[in-house]
Amino acid sequence: MPDLEMLRELAVDADTKMVLVVVDGLGGLPHPDTGLTELESANTPNLDALAADSLCGLVHPVAPGITPGSGPGHMSLFGYDPVRFLVGRGVLSAVGTGIALSPNDVAARVNFCTVENGVVTDRRAGRISTEMNARLCEKLASIKIGGIEVIIRPEKDHRAALVLRGPGLSDELADTDPQKTGLAPLKCEPLPGAGPEAETTAQLVNLYLERAAALLADEHPANMILTRGFAKPPHIPDLKSLYRIRSVGIASYPMYRAVAKLVGMDVADTSDPFAGKVETLAAVWADYDYFFVHHKPTDSSGEDGDFDRKVSKIEEVDASMPGILALEPDVLLVTGDHSTPATLLAHSWHPCPVLLHSPNERRDTVKEFGETACIAGGLPADRADDLMSLMLADALRLEKFGA
Amino acid sequence: MPDLEMLRELAVDADTKMVLVVVDGLGGLPHPDTGLTELESANTPNLDALAADSLCGLVHPVAPGITPGSGPGHMSLFGYDPVRFLVGRGVLSAVGTGIALSPNDVAARVNFCTVENGVVTDRRAGRISTEMNARLCEKLASIKIGGIEVIIRPEKDHRAALVLRGPGLSDELADTDPQKTGLAPLKCEPLPGAGPEAETTAQLVNLYLERAAALLADEHPANMILTRGFAKPPHIPDLKSLYRIRSVGIASYPMYRAVAKLVGMDVADTSDPFAGKVETLAAVWADYDYFFVHHKPTDSSGEDGDFDRKVSKIEEVDASMPGILALEPDVLLVTGDHSTPATLLAHSWHPCPVLLHSPNERRDTVKEFGETACIAGGLPADRADDLMSLMLADALRLEKFGA
Repeated sequence: MPDLEMLRELAVDADTKMVLVVVDGLGGLPHPDTGLTELESANTPNLDALAADSLCGLVHPVAPGITPGSGPGHMSLFGYDPVRFLVGRGVLSAVGTGIALSPNDVAARVNFCTVENGVVTDRRAGRISTEMNARLCEKLASIKIGGIEVIIRPEKDHRAALVLRGPGLSDELADTDPQKTGLAPLKCEPLPGAGPEAETTAQLVNLYLERAAALLADEHPANMILTRGFAKPPHIPDLKSLYRIRSVGIASYPMYRAVAKLVGMDVADTSDPFAGKVETLAAVWADYDYFFVHHKPTDSSGEDGDFDRKVSKIEEVDASMPGILALEPDVLLVTGDHSTPATLLAHSWHPCPVLLHSPNERRDTVKEFGETACIAGGLPADRADDLMSLMLADALRLEKFGA
Repeated sequence: MPDLEMLRELAVDADTKMVLVVVDGLGGLPHPDTGLTELESANTPNLDALAADSLCGLVHPVAPGITPGSGPGHMSLFGYDPVRFLVGRGVLSAVGTGIALSPNDVAARVNFCTVENGVVTDRRAGRISTEMNARLCEKLASIKIGGIEVIIRPEKDHRAALVLRGPGLSDELADTDPQKTGLAPLKCEPLPGAGPEAETTAQLVNLYLERAAALLADEHPANMILTRGFAKPPHIPDLKSLYRIRSVGIASYPMYRAVAKLVGMDVADTSDPFAGKVETLAAVWADYDYFFVHHKPTDSSGEDGDFDRKVSKIEEVDASMPGILALEPDVLLVTGDHSTPATLLAHSWHPCPVLLHSPNERRDTVKEFGETACIAGGLPADRADDLMSLMLADALRLEKFGA
C-alpha cells in the first residue's frame, strides 16, 4: 500500500511523460477449446514486441480473491489504496454527469423503472432513451423538499444521478431498489447502526420519492425511480498536490471520466474507437505529464460473454500502440483495471497482466503479453496501487528517501 | 514489515553464525550495448556457484519506486522497518565520528565552506583535507553557548558532525546550507509548525554559527560552516535485546560503521580492499554470531557512472567468497542496500538481487547471480526488512509461533 505522504514529500518536477493505458477488464480465463485467454488468443504483435522490451507481471487491483468494481480498479491504478479510498456508486454517477460535489453532498445512482399495481415490473423501464431520461429529469428538477437543494441529472439510457445538498445529511442509507421485479420499491431506510442524521435524510429521500412518483404517474414506461449507492465524496488528495503532475483522462464513458476527475485529472474530449483516444493523446501531449487512456469495449464484451469480440477489441488496442510509441513516452504502462473473463460474463478476481516500459527500467525474460507469460515476469509489484510509484520513479520524479 | 516484538519473543540462543555481505549499490541496469547489468557483466564464478546452491530473489529496501538513502537501505537489511526507524543525516554523521548520542542530543551534518562578500562561493571549501578539518574543529571546540554542551568532530574532507547536548532541544530545524553558491548562508529557522523548543534551539544554533564565523574569519578557504540534517537519535531496540545475538560491523566508511552502532553492533577495525574485510571476519569469527560485512566501492563507482569499475569491484567481492565460505557460516546472505545503476549515476528504486545460502534453506532453479536470473528465484520475501527473520530462522534461532 503506497505511503502517499512519503511520496508527496519525495515528488519532484521533471520533464517526463507517463502514459497509463487501461484496457478495461483486460485479464481473462482460458477458452475451453484452446486453453488460451482472450489476450493470449488475440493477435498482438505490437504488445508482444513491447512486452519483450519491458517488465511484465500480474497485479491484484485490491487483494487475492477480491473482484473489484470499476471504481476500486481505477483508484488502485492511480496509486490510491482502493479500500481506504472507496468511492461510492452515487458519487461516481454524480461526478460522471458533471456535478461538482461538495464534501457534505449525498449522491445516489438513480434508475428509472416501471411500476404496475404497486410492484416493479421492469427495473430499467425498458432502457428508455437518454433523451427521454433527460426530459424526465427536467420534470423532476422542479421538486423542492425541506431546506435542501436537490439535483437530478441524466446519465445514459435509464440511469441518472441524484444529489442532496444541505447541512447535516448522512449517506448511511439503504437502497430503495428491491433488486427484483414483482416487489414494491423499498422505502429509504437508515443502515443498521446509523446515527440520527440518517433518519432525517431517509425522510427527505422518501419525501422526494413520493413527489417523483406523483410527477411521473402519467409517464410510460418510466413512471418511477429507484435509488441506490448513497454516498458522500471521499476526501482524495489529488494527483497534482501529491506528485506535482498535470494529468488528463482520455475516456468516453462517464464513470471513467468521473473517477479521473475525482483524483484531480482534467478530462479531454475524445472519440471512439481506441484510435480516437490515441488521436486525443497526441493532441494534448504538450499540455500534461500523466495520461490515462481508457478502452471500454474489452470489458463490455467480457461481460456479454463474447470471447471473440473481446479478442478483437484487444487487437484494436494493439493496432494503435505504434501511435502511442511514436510520442516517445518516458514511461508506458499497459494493463486492465481488473479481469473480465468472457467465460464468467463478469468482473473477476484474477490478477491483471501488466507491461511496464521505460528506458529507466529493467527487462525480464517475458516475450509476449499474456497472463501465462506474465507469471514469469519481473515486475516488482503485486498490487496495482504500487504501479503509480513505479511509474513516477521510472519518470525520475521521486527523490531519494533518507540520508 | 517485521513484527519485532514477535521476533523478540521467539528468539532463542543457538551455536550458529550468520554473515550478511552488503555489496553497496549492487543492483544495476542494463548496459545499452550488451543488455547486461553490472552484476551480469561481471565474471563471478564463486557467486554463481553459490547462487546455484542457494535461494535467490529481488527485494525492495523500502517500497516499489522508492530510492533509499544508505541509512534506510541498511536499517531494512538489519530487519527494521526503514520508514519507522528513519535515521537522520545528522545522527549518521555524529555516530560515524564516534560520538555516543543520548536521546535528547540534536546532531547535524556540517560542511566547511567558503564565503566571499557575504555569499557562499564554494559549498565544500575546495574539499579541504581531513587534517585541516580536524584543526578547524579543534578551533571551533572552544565555542561555548548558553548552558548547553556543543561537540564538533571531523568526518572526512570538508565534512564534520555537530552535536548540541542539553535539556529541551528540538531537531525541527531547517538546513542553513543554501544548496547553491552565490547565496548567503541561511539563518537557522524552525521548521513550519515546530514547537517553541525549536525557536530556542534555532537561536542557539545561530549563536554558534556567528561565533564560528568569527573564529574562522582568517582561515582560507574554509572560513564558514553550513549545517543540515538536524536530527535526534531514534529509539532503536538493539540486535542483542531483540535476538540475543552478538553482532559486529566490518566496514571502513564512517556512515556504515555508524548505522551498525545504532543497532547495537560492535564495529571492528578493518582495512580495504574487500579481502581486508574478509581477513577481519576471520579474525573476529569466534567472538560474534552475526557479521555485517560492507563493501563500498560498488556504490561509489555506480555514482560515478563508471560501469566497468563497478563490474571490477563486484569481481573483487567474488574473489573473496571462498575465504568467507571457508569459515562455514550457517547462513550467508549476499545483497546490496539498494541499487546504484552506473547508467543513472545515483541510487535507484530498482529492487536488489539477493542470495541466501544455508544448509537449512531450500534451493531454487537460479544458476547465476544476476538481476534477471533472480526474477525466477524462490526467495520468500519481497522487502529487505524480512531478510533478518529468514536469516535467524535458517540459523535455527527462532522458536515456533503458537501452539
